[in-house]
Amino acid sequence: MINFNYQNKTKIIFGKGQHKGIGALIKPYSNKILLHYGGGSIKKSGIYDEVIASLKAENIEIIELAGVKPNPRLTLVREGIELCRKNDINFILAVGGGSVIDSSKAISMGVSYPSDVWQLFETGKKPVSALNIGTILTIPAAGSESSGNSVITNEEKQLKIGYGSELLKPVFSVINPEICLTLPHNQMANGVSDMMSHIMERYFTNTLHTDVIDGLCESVLRTIMKNGRTLNKNLGNYDAWAEICLGGNIAHNGLLGVGRDQDWACHAMEHELSAIYDIPHGAGLAILTPFWMRYVCHDNMNMFLQFAVNVMGVEGGFRDQEEIVMEGINRLEAFYKELSLPTTLVEVKIDKTNLEIMAKKAAGNREIGGLKILKWQDVLNIYQLAL
Amino acid sequence: MINFNYQNKTKIIFGKGQHKGIGALIKPYSNKILLHYGGGSIKKSGIYDEVIASLKAENIEIIELAGVKPNPRLTLVREGIELCRKNDINFILAVGGGSVIDSSKAISMGVSYPSDVWQLFETGKKPVSALNIGTILTIPAAGSESSGNSVITNEEKQLKIGYGSELLKPVFSVINPEICLTLPHNQMANGVSDMMSHIMERYFTNTLHTDVIDGLCESVLRTIMKNGRTLNKNLGNYDAWAEICLGGNIAHNGLLGVGRDQDWACHAMEHELSAIYDIPHGAGLAILTPFWMRYVCHDNMNMFLQFAVNVMGVEGGFRDQEEIVMEGINRLEAFYKELSLPTTLVEVKIDKTNLEIMAKKAAGNREIGGLKILKWQDVLNIYQLAL
Repeated sequence: MINFNYQNKTKIIFGKGQHKGIGALIKPYSNKILLHYGGGSIKKSGIYDEVIASLKAENIEIIELAGVKPNPRLTLVREGIELCRKNDINFILAVGGGSVIDSSKAISMGVSYPSDVWQLFETGKKPVSALNIGTILTIPAAGSESSGNSVITNEEKQLKIGYGSELLKPVFSVINPEICLTLPHNQMANGVSDMMSHIMERYFTNTLHTDVIDGLCESVLRTIMKNGRTLNKNLGNYDAWAEICLGGNIAHNGLLGVGRDQDWACHAMEHELSAIYDIPHGAGLAILTPFWMRYVCHDNMNMFLQFAVNVMGVEGGFRDQEEIVMEGINRLEAFYKELSLPTTLVEVKIDKTNLEIMAKKAAGNREIGGLKILKWQDVLNIYQLAL
Repeated sequence: MINFNYQNKTKIIFGKGQHKGIGALIKPYSNKILLHYGGGSIKKSGIYDEVIASLKAENIEIIELAGVKPNPRLTLVREGIELCRKNDINFILAVGGGSVIDSSKAISMGVSYPSDVWQLFETGKKPVSALNIGTILTIPAAGSESSGNSVITNEEKQLKIGYGSELLKPVFSVINPEICLTLPHNQMANGVSDMMSHIMERYFTNTLHTDVIDGLCESVLRTIMKNGRTLNKNLGNYDAWAEICLGGNIAHNGLLGVGRDQDWACHAMEHELSAIYDIPHGAGLAILTPFWMRYVCHDNMNMFLQFAVNVMGVEGGFRDQEEIVMEGINRLEAFYKELSLPTTLVEVKIDKTNLEIMAKKAAGNREIGGLKILKWQDVLNIYQLAL
């Protein structure tokens, strides 16, 4: 185990009906907020009306900014920053999934930043300050509801860059699994893939003596897969959604990464896919992760053996470690297929045209990965294997 | 899963050498602190000198209060309150195990309370406010370093009462497993028992659909037992201590109890033992827990079956569920014996003299437990079985 500091201040308010108390939750922080959301889904489901009613009951003034899309755009972030400045807003309520929350975070640190907010993403500089954020999560996937991370796409530059700061952690997040009961199947599947990746990016490490966190990672992975399978058959199962929502939150609140080097190569490689092709993040991860595993596993067979046995349940009947490891990876890929996720690039209409460009964007000026360090040529190899 | 709110603000600073930076950690909060600790062990080990040096380097004024004993006493708490008032202190640094931290918490909420602090314990009333606390943990066991709980013994009344408030959570806790390398075997064993109990008190529940947290509880229990066995043979193993320190922290930071009814009968029953007989808390829990399990298991065989299989590793070869459950409980008891913990009351020189008095103190005016509600007659039965 390596030395670490860990803190997560975000208050989680979890369960049935909890979003209806949003007004009282915000009141101690603000009387005037930016309400940030995506499209019509929260209006169709009635959540929008319930949120507005609760805010109005507490006399909270509302400025709205809708229109967040998956892989949230810089243009809308800039618009949000101007709205907050013009209206002297000090609190943002994000109602949505990871894209809406990430967009809110970018707005929150842009308001007091004297230059364009994209500078912060490009340079990694610390923001001066950030507005408080509260969230009502509508799609469990990104874990953004209790992380300090934001990933924004600059449409002009076809760049997708992630940014992290303790300042960006929401003060509270409301997670009501009832809200998920109307999600379409592909959002469930993409979400399951994304949250599993958040765990695996932390789990695969060369750090030794990491028993506690290894065990937690393995356990949450198994639980997510079990309940993902339940939802695969019946999207209307509240109990399974509750496990997925809680699992997805723990997957990315930082706890599962303490005391160990982390990897994050798959996320870096995937960001380049969705920056150019605009495919769902979870789909891109489902494609790349098994190919990444086959490419890097020989650098730490013990770790992949542990994964095969403890997560994928591979038992006796195999000739050697190699076979056990490959069986574990194959079972992960089979699980993605079971959830109707793509497992090759051609399935999402990505051909070889931009592979080299994307590989250089991912790892041209830097090395990525932790368990195995990848150069851009490695990334290109993995992309090609995944075609 | 039931609805829940969860937040834990305590910052964990974990690893080798971390306590040497204590001055810089405290500086943002205070220039004048109460340094609260137990006896000579931190002086013998050199930690005391390192802490003083770091505080002095930051020009932090130090008022000392030593003398905390296991099962911390109200008399010393009152003394600490007077010291803080007289010296206008706004921060307490607790250097020690659960007793020192619990004592600090009681002091922290007593300073601004206009009457005697014991009233807060007896009535459960909310404190007006509490001083900030930081801790340097020297014994992993109680989990007090990131909980809001304090258990204080009123020596005159032979009463041991627990109290909980969000206000009592430390602002930070330094956990350096190196400090544990010189702990005696019995403190390791008592600590392991205590932290396992913190998990089991949360784990055993009648709440259904609790996959994520069940899995986390089972995983941390297995890890603590594995590393407890390592330390049982070699107390000088840093890596095993690191797992025990991290496991003991997660065991009691609240996460493992979210979304479920909890039990806590064993803790309530044990408090009465150590209030009168002053035995180590972990030893009392090792005695009572298996007998509690045998007494209550038929009220929820599924839960105890899950425990036997997933935690204690009971596999095939048994006639029925009953046998599997009993084997699981027997293995837990055998584990305590392996760690040289007592598993009957006579081993710690408790005879039948005070059993009825203790049973009535534990559950005379109230019912205790969650998985099975216990009246004082039930508690008496369990004490008698444990003789």
